[in-house]
Parts: sequence; structure tokens; C-alpha cells
Amino acid sequence: MRYEESMVEGRNPVIEAFRSGKTVDKLFILDGCQDGPVKTILREAKKQDTRLYFVSKERLDQLSETKHHQGVIAVCAAYHYAQLDDILEAAQKKGEDPFVILLDGIEDPHNLGAILRTANLAGAHGIIIPKNRAAGLTPTVARVSAGAINYTPVVRVTNMAAAIDRLKKEGLWFVCADMGGEVMYRLNLKGPIGLVIGNEGSGVSRLVRDKCDFTASIPMKGDIDSLNASVAAGVLAYEIVRQRML
Amino acid sequence: MRYEESMVEGRNPVIEAFRSGKTVDKLFILDGCQDGPVKTILREAKKQDTRLYFVSKERLDQLSETKHHQGVIAVCAAYHYAQLDDILEAAQKKGEDPFVILLDGIEDPHNLGAILRTANLAGAHGIIIPKNRAAGLTPTVARVSAGAINYTPVVRVTNMAAAIDRLKKEGLWFVCADMGGEVMYRLNLKGPIGLVIGNEGSGVSRLVRDKCDFTASIPMKGDIDSLNASVAAGVLAYEIVRQRML
Repeated sequence: MRYEESMVEGRNPVIEAFRSGKTVDKLFILDGCQDGPVKTILREAKKQDTRLYFVSKERLDQLSETKHHQGVIAVCAAYHYAQLDDILEAAQKKGEDPFVILLDGIEDPHNLGAILRTANLAGAHGIIIPKNRAAGLTPTVARVSAGAINYTPVVRVTNMAAAIDRLKKEGLWFVCADMGGEVMYRLNLKGPIGLVIGNEGSGVSRLVRDKCDFTASIPMKGDIDSLNASVAAGVLAYEIVRQRML
Repeated sequence: MRYEESMVEGRNPVIEAFRSGKTVDKLFILDGCQDGPVKTILREAKKQDTRLYFVSKERLDQLSETKHHQGVIAVCAAYHYAQLDDILEAAQKKGEDPFVILLDGIEDPHNLGAILRTANLAGAHGIIIPKNRAAGLTPTVARVSAGAINYTPVVRVTNMAAAIDRLKKEGLWFVCADMGGEVMYRLNLKGPIGLVIGNEGSGVSRLVRDKCDFTASIPMKGDIDSLNASVAAGVLAYEIVRQRML
């Protein structure tokens, strides 16, 4: 299970949950309840686009674990991150060379969701994202991933370069997406591979790029600068798929 | 020039512009003006996320063409659609076989914008979209296209099947993206080509699919149903690019 729910009950705990940045998926409120704290909660819920359910006291009592719900129960989302070993094991189980996608600072949850979808269908065994300055697993990512979040493991690491070093010991080669690189069709992308995609604006960071074994570019014929990050990830991931099928 | 601006001046005309669904890019309002109609205009502007500029009477007088601005001037966006001939001419000028992307009902402006970006960089000579039940050229599409809207012609047609017939007479072959098709790597996608991408949910419509000469699929290894539409368009467009480079 990649997704778990946890319940928060009572007025102050629910307000706290919203304010701490927790993702509240659903909110059950006693129908007709209109006092100050409840209004505050509704305001926070509106900001987050939380689904609201106005229910009877009986329904709340039935849902409640603590029996001190004070008319409000929030259902919070918690997405679980995997470990590097989970990715390696997934590849081993399928008898395939590991294929990992590393996102060095993807900030837009729509891009992360779309890349998860691509990773799942291109047969990548997992995605690695950094803890800081990057989109994490949120309900938006889950929705955009069209279910892929439930299948493709996502590992969150503090140090991307260290994760690359660790995976190099397992025999992986790393290819970094960069406009200055060799045209992807001319590279050998077979074998155990890590595909590194950079930030939407600034690309792959210097530190991570220096760790990569080669640099691949997508041929560009047009007038503008770059593809959308999730499209670029898709095009590169499928070049790996094509070469693996040869 | 693909993009033109037009000015709307005066309270009622500006309210009308908002209500008729026109896209108001910028709104200049006399600083300090707070009466009923102005509040209505501000409310509409907020809904549309219009950029607001509170300016002096002198500035408004200077901007005004009609000299009857009544304290409000709206700058509206108008994107220009191209003609089928523009696409064919663009290919001819470059001495290339025509490469057209047909979007049979893409509804999400983010997808349309990302596909425009891809079309530009993959060297497609234009995009064809239907008039009904599809995203058109809006400021969101323009923003997501990262400038591609200014280069890659977009043609809007009433009848997609008729457009295909017209282009077939010009020697184009049509390939339709569909999960049931032949794996794209095994198809010959060289020569003058039209790539047809379907709606996000329902795919390519029956009528349009029947017009296509062959059906191409992207290999799918995963657990979920389909790629994001703009990623799928990117992967297929780049398979055409690869084959053209051979």
C-alpha cells in the first residue's frame, strides 16, 4: 500500500492539520454547525479544495476513533515513499536490468504526476526525487499519475549524488538529459540505466551532471528553447524502451 | 504575428467583454475609483485572473483611443488561426515533407500548450484542431506553449475528416495513435505525414480513425491504461523525427 489515511479529530487538531500543511482529503462536519472555529476550518478547507461532507452526529460518532470529535473529523492523506532497495528488487523480480528515472528538482506536481505515469508504462522500476526544492507526493500528483502512484515506487533522497553513487555500485550507468549532449539515438542506452531529468527552468544541477556517465539530447528543430519537462522525460524514456526492444 | 491586442474602453463595454467570454489580458483602472460598475469589473477580472493596473487619469487619457474610457480600459487578447495552406507552404519553404499534428478533441489547455511546444521542436509544420469540444488558443495555451504559439501555425477546422481528405490530396498519409495499433517502431513513418492524437479520455473518434491509413501504438509495459496525451504526442512525434533522421 502506497497510500494510507489517518484521521484527525476535534476542532483545534483539525485547524492544526490544515496549518501544518498536511493534506486533508476529506472533511466531515456536523451539519448545521456554524461557530467561529468551524468557520475557520471551512475557510482552510476551501483554500485546499478539500471535499466536504455535512453529516449527522450519529455518522460522526460512528467514524470517530477518539470519541472526542467536537463535530469535526478530517481524513488526511499520507503517501509512502519507497527505499532504493525496493527499486532494485522490483527489477530483479522481473529479471530485468534496472531502469530508474531520477528527477533533479521537478517542481510542478503536474509534471511529476505525468512522469510517474510515463515511468510506469515505460517499464521503469522506480523514480528518485530529492527532499528539497522539488514536488513531493501530493493528491494532485496522485490524480495526474492516473493510478501509477500505486505501482511505481518513488524514493525521496536527501542527496541525489549519493544515491547515484550507491546505484553505480549496483552496476547502473547514468545518462543526463541536456541540450548540449549527444543526440540520444546515437547513444547506447541499453543495460542497467538511470535517466536524469532536470528542473523545469534550470535543468540538471552541476553536481548531479558531473556524476553522470553521458549526456543525451533530444534533437530540436524549432524556434523555442525546450520541451515541457514531462514530455522530454517521456521522449527519452521511450528511446530507452526502443533500444531495449531491439 | 499570431497575436494581436485590441482595446475595449468604458464601463459597459468592458463588462460586456468579460461576460462575452473574451479574454482580457490587462485592465487599466483609474486609481481610487470604487463605484458599483467598477466593483463589478474588478470581480470579473478576479475570476479571470486578469492583471490589474491602477493608474492616473493622465495615463488613461494617454492610452485611450476613443477618449471615452470612463476610468476603465481593457486590453483583450486575440490569437490568430492559420489556414491549411499556411502549413503546406511552411513545409514547402523548408523543402521538407509536410508533417502535421491533428488533435482530435484535446480538451486540456495544458496539453494543447505542451503539444504546441513539442510540434515546434519536433519540426512539425502545423497543428490542426477542431472548432468544437476542444481547447482553442487561449492565454493559458500561449503561456504553456513557451512561445511556440508565435511560430507553429494552428488551424481550426469544423470538420476534421474533411481536412484529412484535403491533405490526402496533397500526398499526406495519416497515422492514428491508438493502443490497439501496430507498435510504432515497426511502422514506416517517413514521408508526408499527419499524426492524429485523440481526446484525453476517449481517444480518436471513430470517424477520424476510419480516415487514417494506419494505427500506431506506443509499447506499454505497466499497470495503468495510458500516457498523458501530451506525453503520448511527444513520444510519437519523436518517433517520426527519428525515422526522418535515418
